[in-house]
Amino acid sequence: KPVKIAVANGDGIGPEIMEATLRILNAAGANIEPDYIELGEKVYLSGNTSGVEDSSWEAINTNKVIFKAPITTPQGKGYKSLNVTLRKSLGLFANVRPVQALTPFVPSHFPDMDVVVVRENEEDLYAGIEHRQTQDVYQCLKLITRPGCERIVRYAFEYAKACGRKKVTCMLKDNIMKITDGLFHKVFDEIAIEYPEINSETQIIDIGAARLAAKPENYDVIVTSNLYGDIISDIAAEIGGSVGMCGSANIGKNVAMFEAIHGSAPDIAGKNIANPSGLINAAISMLVHIGQADVGDKIKNAWLKTLEEGYHTADIFREAVSVEKLGTKAFADRVIANLGKK
Amino acid sequence: KPVKIAVANGDGIGPEIMEATLRILNAAGANIEPDYIELGEKVYLSGNTSGVEDSSWEAINTNKVIFKAPITTPQGKGYKSLNVTLRKSLGLFANVRPVQALTPFVPSHFPDMDVVVVRENEEDLYAGIEHRQTQDVYQCLKLITRPGCERIVRYAFEYAKACGRKKVTCMLKDNIMKITDGLFHKVFDEIAIEYPEINSETQIIDIGAARLAAKPENYDVIVTSNLYGDIISDIAAEIGGSVGMCGSANIGKNVAMFEAIHGSAPDIAGKNIANPSGLINAAISMLVHIGQADVGDKIKNAWLKTLEEGYHTADIFREAVSVEKLGTKAFADRVIANLGKK
Ligand SMILES: CC(C)[C@H](C(=O)O)[C@@H](O)C(=O)O
Ligand SMILES: CC(C)[C@H](C(=O)O)[C@@H](O)C(=O)O
Repeated sequence: KPVKIAVANGDGIGPEIMEATLRILNAAGANIEPDYIELGEKVYLSGNTSGVEDSSWEAINTNKVIFKAPITTPQGKGYKSLNVTLRKSLGLFANVRPVQALTPFVPSHFPDMDVVVVRENEEDLYAGIEHRQTQDVYQCLKLITRPGCERIVRYAFEYAKACGRKKVTCMLKDNIMKITDGLFHKVFDEIAIEYPEINSETQIIDIGAARLAAKPENYDVIVTSNLYGDIISDIAAEIGGSVGMCGSANIGKNVAMFEAIHGSAPDIAGKNIANPSGLINAAISMLVHIGQADVGDKIKNAWLKTLEEGYHTADIFREAVSVEKLGTKAFADRVIANLGKK
Repeated sequence: KPVKIAVANGDGIGPEIMEATLRILNAAGANIEPDYIELGEKVYLSGNTSGVEDSSWEAINTNKVIFKAPITTPQGKGYKSLNVTLRKSLGLFANVRPVQALTPFVPSHFPDMDVVVVRENEEDLYAGIEHRQTQDVYQCLKLITRPGCERIVRYAFEYAKACGRKKVTCMLKDNIMKITDGLFHKVFDEIAIEYPEINSETQIIDIGAARLAAKPENYDVIVTSNLYGDIISDIAAEIGGSVGMCGSANIGKNVAMFEAIHGSAPDIAGKNIANPSGLINAAISMLVHIGQADVGDKIKNAWLKTLEEGYHTADIFREAVSVEKLGTKAFADRVIANLGKK
């Protein structure tokens, strides 16, 4: 029986990269059945400030897996970030973002980088507690809880263990935030000793981010709180090649959501030129999650082969290494043609 | 009459790099007179949790200029960060951190980078308002004020104007923190229109940090709040060559403080191997501030010439480009020998 997946087509380039990715999943023999849900721009503009239709919540909670294309949040103070709404409402506590360089096909100064950022996904300044105290004084509350820290740190070590990774680095600013970031650090130390086979280290976020940017090959798994993880994962993705290439898994106790890490790029929407790679990588993570890792491997190989052959979308096309510039559809066709090839 | 300067020798490598730098200042004809003050480890361990002796405050407020080597804050929750104490007590609202690549003498992937980070230095999560709400729930308050935003944004534009720089980029997370970071953004837009000759742009901090790490040559002046600025400036410094090479100016209405951006490196203290370049660059900023920019230029040229000749301290020594590995003292001697040379 196929696994039912709540699928959100998204806005901007969302629908075209989703179409391309679902065709690949289908051709690869993924045993899934899309259950389309409404999220995003249209829902916002219909007056629902959360951006999620009531019926979509039902579908999400029934299917327990969401596959989501990028969405557009309209300008204006009334609209809450859909990503944050989904993450918090569904308790998607871990945001897992793998980055691997793909040189020479995608240029990067760091051919050996292979980093996974495990980002706490519900707490921190993202709790959305903000207010004006006076006309001139504005405040936002950073929230860190012990269960929140325990969940994410344990997830990072379990992930490292399951994937045979060697080191977990924790990045924080606990020389300044001794109480909040200090708690995260303390919990990290407590849990790290339960995993003697995995190396662990902590770094202050400023110098940690700097060293990641300068020598990413020295990092393996990085665990950190929400805002630092937001910054760190974009840095990793961009210096590894492009934020346009990476997917992410948002993991909760009951529900998991898979998405590209880039946005909906309305400026190039509908032109059949967008790179579906971020969403393809998100799909591969999803297949692992639903127990179809073999199908995921097949897609990953075909995708890599396509890049290696030099068939590139416009964003990564370079005379020096590319053979042909392909549109979104043709790129997907090529990945499909490469399924099962060595 | 010489300008009196409050000088803090610092901890770890502090005293040796300060000695080296003061010798250079002296040889270059800087018209200054050090007034030594007590700050840091010894003061902390004597039981003063602020790390600053009362008599030092007096000297600072009289002289109005501090030249400070890195200090060590002892481990332990009772000790407040000295940097933060000084910045807040003295109202040092702007932290100015220039980074210029020095390839091929110091390796960097980005030979053309020339960035100045202007970091707000008093507010944000650095206000130090933190508490335990329950055994499991910890909070920290992020504080953003309109006068604080106005001060730093105006400083960034005035700095850009004075230095003939072309663009100011503001980095924030106002898609999430619509009230606090939203205020900073609004103030940025308000002030930017007063400087039509300078380009201005805003970027979300995650992708901004990522683009800075991937293509720093696209940035000129960056203005941002305290925590983002902390992270961004370390990234810039490290990918530009090394955090060990950069100095910073902490500017207030009445007082200004000049320091290296690196720490006190206790592991290599007393060995005459530390690189004094960060403090030398801080000294150059200080000379501009006290109206002796010509002496600053002279030192800058001599310092660059020394690097170009291949006389390098151990941290930047590489067989490929270095001629001789010099200790702290010998490096300073070489800079002195190069003063006034073309
Ligand atoms: C769009 C935005 C709310 C989101 C975040 O800040 O988490 C994005 O930057 C991400 O990293 O997924
Ligand atoms: C030492 C620390 C308190 C300081 C900061 O966070 O500001 C440092 O990282 C810096 O950037 O000057």
